Amino acid sequence: MTTRRDAAAADQQDPLAVHREQFRIDPGVVYLDGNSLGALPVRVEGRVAEVIAEQWGRDLIRSWNKHGWADLPRTVGDKIGSIIGAEPDSVIAADSTTVNLYKAVHAALSMTPRPRILTDAGNFPTDIYAMSGVAEQLGRELVIVEPEEVLSSVDDSVGVLALTQVDYRTGRKHDLANVTKAAQESGALMVWDLAHSAGAFPVDVAAHGVDLAVGCGYKYLNGGPGAPGFIYVAPRHQARFANPIRGWWGHTEPFAFRLDFTPADGIDRARVGTPHVLSMLVLDAALDVFADIDLRLVEAKSRRLSSLFIDLLDSRVELASPAHASQRGSQVSVRHPDAYAVVQALIGRGVIGDFRMPDIARFGFAPLYVRYVDAWDAADQLRAVLDAEEWAAPEHRRRAQVT
Amino acid sequence: MTTRRDAAAADQQDPLAVHREQFRIDPGVVYLDGNSLGALPVRVEGRVAEVIAEQWGRDLIRSWNKHGWADLPRTVGDKIGSIIGAEPDSVIAADSTTVNLYKAVHAALSMTPRPRILTDAGNFPTDIYAMSGVAEQLGRELVIVEPEEVLSSVDDSVGVLALTQVDYRTGRKHDLANVTKAAQESGALMVWDLAHSAGAFPVDVAAHGVDLAVGCGYKYLNGGPGAPGFIYVAPRHQARFANPIRGWWGHTEPFAFRLDFTPADGIDRARVGTPHVLSMLVLDAALDVFADIDLRLVEAKSRRLSSLFIDLLDSRVELASPAHASQRGSQVSVRHPDAYAVVQALIGRGVIGDFRMPDIARFGFAPLYVRYVDAWDAADQLRAVLDAEEWAAPEHRRRAQVT
Repeated sequence: MTTRRDAAAADQQDPLAVHREQFRIDPGVVYLDGNSLGALPVRVEGRVAEVIAEQWGRDLIRSWNKHGWADLPRTVGDKIGSIIGAEPDSVIAADSTTVNLYKAVHAALSMTPRPRILTDAGNFPTDIYAMSGVAEQLGRELVIVEPEEVLSSVDDSVGVLALTQVDYRTGRKHDLANVTKAAQESGALMVWDLAHSAGAFPVDVAAHGVDLAVGCGYKYLNGGPGAPGFIYVAPRHQARFANPIRGWWGHTEPFAFRLDFTPADGIDRARVGTPHVLSMLVLDAALDVFADIDLRLVEAKSRRLSSLFIDLLDSRVELASPAHASQRGSQVSVRHPDAYAVVQALIGRGVIGDFRMPDIARFGFAPLYVRYVDAWDAADQLRAVLDAEEWAAPEHRRRAQVT
Repeated sequence: MTTRRDAAAADQQDPLAVHREQFRIDPGVVYLDGNSLGALPVRVEGRVAEVIAEQWGRDLIRSWNKHGWADLPRTVGDKIGSIIGAEPDSVIAADSTTVNLYKAVHAALSMTPRPRILTDAGNFPTDIYAMSGVAEQLGRELVIVEPEEVLSSVDDSVGVLALTQVDYRTGRKHDLANVTKAAQESGALMVWDLAHSAGAFPVDVAAHGVDLAVGCGYKYLNGGPGAPGFIYVAPRHQARFANPIRGWWGHTEPFAFRLDFTPADGIDRARVGTPHVLSMLVLDAALDVFADIDLRLVEAKSRRLSSLFIDLLDSRVELASPAHASQRGSQVSVRHPDAYAVVQALIGRGVIGDFRMPDIARFGFAPLYVRYVDAWDAADQLRAVLDAEEWAAPEHRRRAQVT
């Protein structure tokens, strides 16, 4: 594509273009932060209003049965399961991603006598924090290597290999199939964090024999701010999955109110407390967007969008993401000494990306609502920001507490 | 009160009566299950619509700063703190009650070398499940005694005494001040679950020197189904509070994305993952109902409501709650061999209570929206159900999965 008209023509032919109208995107906004907070699916508003007025307001406590509140972690989990290629009854939507990772890694370690958890420095810090706690609590050792050293570091001291597939800063993507195979061949269990994977491209956890996985509901799944996360436990491991946080919803008979804890059969044992029903129903509505979507098309468009953006990138920024589309997730990151201010200046121009320490400007390409013209315009505006040196303006350099 | 007219007159003079219009209660419904799921505060609907359309839909990722999403666990926590008499900056609203109890008891045990956690058989089972896991993980022993044996069982082997103040079945209430004092005099830390206390009567955790506490957002606080729970850590313990679930929001600098975990100063270290923003904002709106409410009036009305109901109780059911109002929470429970069907028949008559195994019918009196005529009518309808033996009808005996 060499002109904006080419990009518009690509949008015309895009089989996913029809889905953009399922999202609320204000005119004039180029939203490239769906890898942090997915856009609002239009159907959410009516659904929430109905849930609050009718289910909570009118049916009250009866909704636990009448409207399936009690089963939400399973029904929503199964919808996510079909997006990540999981077997039925192997995913629970609940809690936060960090809490789910804590459960997954704690349970995985209890399945192996080996002394080490291996991860990489490209993992999202919360995963590393959670694992450092689990390691201390269970008397194991957490080993952190560089992403490219992972395969060579898997030896018979490693009981659990736990990685986030897509690096939150650079978008560098691990080869899930090969890494899983290597871990398992050496006798380790493989735990994936799919926070930046689920909903962005096919994952196929079942086909690749993944042991456990967790992920996030509010990025490419568009479940709204702080949406519940999810946890996947392969069916072959469910009978020995020991949830460290024992709660009544993970009990085999929650409403028998017995004093002794007998974990539920199957994936329900990954549950803990009462589901966050309102957040869960928002996520549920958001997931319905995926009902008739082929994730291979999503991946193909993601690669074409991000490659277009990279092709158009100004040489005054340095590409921080892999140049090859097959090696990156659905984002493009660039380095600039004043990346924070660059991002602020772009936001002032209606192009919303985000900043990650120390010098990264991050642009997510959520293919369900990002257009080829958006990639074109974003690159255009980035050039304009650099041309005008807008990153030097004081109002763009003033940091807010959270970015 | 000897006639329904007396009850109506009491409502006329009730200083809290004005607050009923802040809730959505359908005409013809007597809602006595606010101890399980609080009624819908009217203000929630507009708030949620605005949050979704404007904050998520329009401001998107910028809302983390612009609309204070990042601080919600603190700002909502402080609102709950003022309801339970906590110091400022000592309560976090987050996660589920069970996850918070796990954190609290795990952290409490790490503050003491003593080998035992003591609790009672009147505790809600999820608390006992969570503690049994913590005890196993830390090599300690969980001891469960009867509620009346608690004080005599506190000895120097007990490092943590963890109790739910109000028994979910009978409404029996522990004397928080005396039990806390006894525990601490013997050198134990006191952890209270305030699930059935917060919002129902004054608790005054600071005044009574409580060490740690947790509670629920969706009962008397009316935060909606599965609202986030809360955790209180007394200021004197915060510096040594070791959250077992280390997450980025509990880090001293979440957005520095460092690999080493340094817990935040103060109560923020009780946080884990990204707050469930939508559920949190619903809870936030619901808590605003309490802004100008004197909890001493709430407690006084609760006692008068439940005492009226007890006075009117039919002799064919057996009172399961303490007869003295000062010894019970804001509920009245009765036993009947067919309690499940009795509750179903009452629901058919518009009186919503709930059933707890094996033979308890439970009626909660949330004083912000339950009227004296409601207590009168509920007793009246219970008598009618028993007169007509409606509990024998097949449609009332058929059990749903969840009640």
